[in-house]
Amino acid sequence: MPIHLSTAQPDFEQRFADLLSMKREDAADVNEAVAAIIADVRARGDAALVELTGRFDRLDLTAAGLAFTAGEIADQTARVSAEDRAALVTAASRIRAYHARQMPEDMLWTDPEGASLGWRWTPVSAAGLYVPGGQASYPSSVLMNAIPARVAGVERLVICVPTPDGAVNPLVLLAAELAGVDEIYRIGGAQAIAALAYGTETIRPVDKITGPGNAYVAAAKRQVFGRVGIDMIAGPSEVLIIAAGAQDPEWLALDLLAQAEHDADAQSILITPDKALAQAVVAEVERLLPSLPRAAVAGASWRDYGTVILTRDLDEAAALSDRLAPEHLELCVDDPDALARKTRHAGAIFLGGWTPEAVGDYVSGPNHVLPTARSARFSSGLSVMDFLKRTTLAKLSPAALGTIGPAAVRLAASEGLSAHGLSVSARLRTLNGDER
Amino acid sequence: MPIHLSTAQPDFEQRFADLLSMKREDAADVNEAVAAIIADVRARGDAALVELTGRFDRLDLTAAGLAFTAGEIADQTARVSAEDRAALVTAASRIRAYHARQMPEDMLWTDPEGASLGWRWTPVSAAGLYVPGGQASYPSSVLMNAIPARVAGVERLVICVPTPDGAVNPLVLLAAELAGVDEIYRIGGAQAIAALAYGTETIRPVDKITGPGNAYVAAAKRQVFGRVGIDMIAGPSEVLIIAAGAQDPEWLALDLLAQAEHDADAQSILITPDKALAQAVVAEVERLLPSLPRAAVAGASWRDYGTVILTRDLDEAAALSDRLAPEHLELCVDDPDALARKTRHAGAIFLGGWTPEAVGDYVSGPNHVLPTARSARFSSGLSVMDFLKRTTLAKLSPAALGTIGPAAVRLAASEGLSAHGLSVSARLRTLNGDER
Repeated sequence: MPIHLSTAQPDFEQRFADLLSMKREDAADVNEAVAAIIADVRARGDAALVELTGRFDRLDLTAAGLAFTAGEIADQTARVSAEDRAALVTAASRIRAYHARQMPEDMLWTDPEGASLGWRWTPVSAAGLYVPGGQASYPSSVLMNAIPARVAGVERLVICVPTPDGAVNPLVLLAAELAGVDEIYRIGGAQAIAALAYGTETIRPVDKITGPGNAYVAAAKRQVFGRVGIDMIAGPSEVLIIAAGAQDPEWLALDLLAQAEHDADAQSILITPDKALAQAVVAEVERLLPSLPRAAVAGASWRDYGTVILTRDLDEAAALSDRLAPEHLELCVDDPDALARKTRHAGAIFLGGWTPEAVGDYVSGPNHVLPTARSARFSSGLSVMDFLKRTTLAKLSPAALGTIGPAAVRLAASEGLSAHGLSVSARLRTLNGDER
Repeated sequence: MPIHLSTAQPDFEQRFADLLSMKREDAADVNEAVAAIIADVRARGDAALVELTGRFDRLDLTAAGLAFTAGEIADQTARVSAEDRAALVTAASRIRAYHARQMPEDMLWTDPEGASLGWRWTPVSAAGLYVPGGQASYPSSVLMNAIPARVAGVERLVICVPTPDGAVNPLVLLAAELAGVDEIYRIGGAQAIAALAYGTETIRPVDKITGPGNAYVAAAKRQVFGRVGIDMIAGPSEVLIIAAGAQDPEWLALDLLAQAEHDADAQSILITPDKALAQAVVAEVERLLPSLPRAAVAGASWRDYGTVILTRDLDEAAALSDRLAPEHLELCVDDPDALARKTRHAGAIFLGGWTPEAVGDYVSGPNHVLPTARSARFSSGLSVMDFLKRTTLAKLSPAALGTIGPAAVRLAASEGLSAHGLSVSARLRTLNGDER
């Protein structure tokens, strides 16, 4: 049974606060184990990678076998059906087109005082993308991480993907090829993150690491943060659907289930002012659930975290949505644009009934790596910007320093930083001498 | 004696690698103490803040006294001299003008398939700025953190600044007023970060926390990350000066010392192909050092971490600079623009001899919160973007879903996510029915 709330309930505020603070993840404390693995890879390099991959993935490798060869990649990708290949090509092309528009522009201007100011963007030199093995080894995630890096102009793009017992997902390799990945290593876990951050004899270090992973991978990313840049630490996924008007309950039920089938910790929330619609959607969920191949997972998610909230109107729904700050927000209402303007915090908004969240996972174009666990209040989905950094530029004419320098001297004095002041006043002295 | 290197040395690569991996910070492990403080503030709220502030800052407060009142702020800011006030106003105005240009634009377009795509930017609702107490309580940092937040449109802007033994820096309060800060609390350390992240009876929580601090503050920011957004964890500051041609050795020496006087862990590096210039600058540093009020700090920094590198030419200097990825890069050469184009990794570049880094600390306009410890390889200085987040938008017409939906169905099948596929194909079925 999902959670049923109504804003008309006298204790609604307390119930909603409980929903906001609900913990969906049992984060095992793996920090010590991860720290030991990182230290081992830093100390022993390839030898540690080979040994750990033998232990965790049951693979008998040598250092020379860490990387997929071009031949191995070609053999695997040849096994992909023409239909799957075409779908991946469509997805890659649409993701590339969307992200190309994100490239920011450099700026340079001269202000009235004679200071030339601005900034410029440059790509990180090398990026590493972690791809989980097994069930969660998604080719779509390869595209969503690798294409923004390539659009940004990253020169060297590396993938680490574990191949437990030698199992390889050919679609992951094809997605890597379509995205223009340069190197692929068959390693995973904290050892892969350590290799990307610190390098080994075989694997040169990168500057930025992105991509999803299990608790070990997440802990390792936290620990190497600072040495390299990382993307967000993603939590379990969630969808919030605001629905009203003439909506097909089956569509909405399938959208809720698409979220629920990801993970038993995923959360699907429906907010509507229409009680009959809510009941119809819940009935559809119950009807459709048993037929899903992943019914066990989706059923657990729906039972433990599925939520239906009845509101007085759509304004109230939008306000609640903002407090939840969902990763995915579907607006299945007559005027989705107007409702979108009433919300502020969401990773991605899907407007109208013809835009199911699942198209966003694959082919609509925007990134599917999005802020979870209410972090859309302060962060954004993955983008080209994650693979760029900005350098600010300043160039003062002697006259500009003459005009604004004295204020710097004054503030340096107030902060007790005399060499700061002297570094400006020595120049001002020369300037005033020249002017005499 | 600073470190002397030359690219002509046979063991230069090893020496430079040592420089790159040099540790300048003894990060005390305060994680457990910080975790206990955060737990205490979460459990007991204001009562914990009052008790911890009594213990660490020797202040006898009540919950009602945590916030500065308008009267207290007015009393303090009235003590600022007209000259200091004017300098702060100049700085605030220039910082505001620079950051106003950083506001990104929303985008929305419709592609040939009929998908309306784009994104929009919205500010975080509330931001908290940490300001250290004592010696490092810099009004310039208040401006550099608070103004970008205000430019971004943050509605509620909060400062926490400890006042050990009741000592208040009036310039900090004036800077807060000029930047438009809404609330100021006289608390510091990990307890302030906990209050900003989780809230107490008196202090409502914020969504994003920025600003520098000691090891406790840094550890607390790391621990609350995820619950709220944080800016970077800053390490000790550094400057790299590339110099050649007719440069005044005194200017360069003062620029190196301005960095060194920040902190005994700060690092000042001079790279030049001109041995005579290098010797003249080092002589000037030695001559000027004893006269500085902060000679002990600057001397320790210069002795332990000061570095002079002789290169064959400027191209070699630029390549070394990129490997160091300095926070501040001064290009004191005849054609600084050309040299800037040969570098990629730096937090901020100061072009030409009339742009000492110290003007950038105060009044040139760009932000002085910049990536340290080689993190300019993958990150940027503080900006308006740190207080905004992007929501991606997608709205498909029925025809657009008809065109791109089948690829999503195919990819969902390949990833074993059947409800994903069904959520699209149910709509395609309706669409095809409608078209018949």
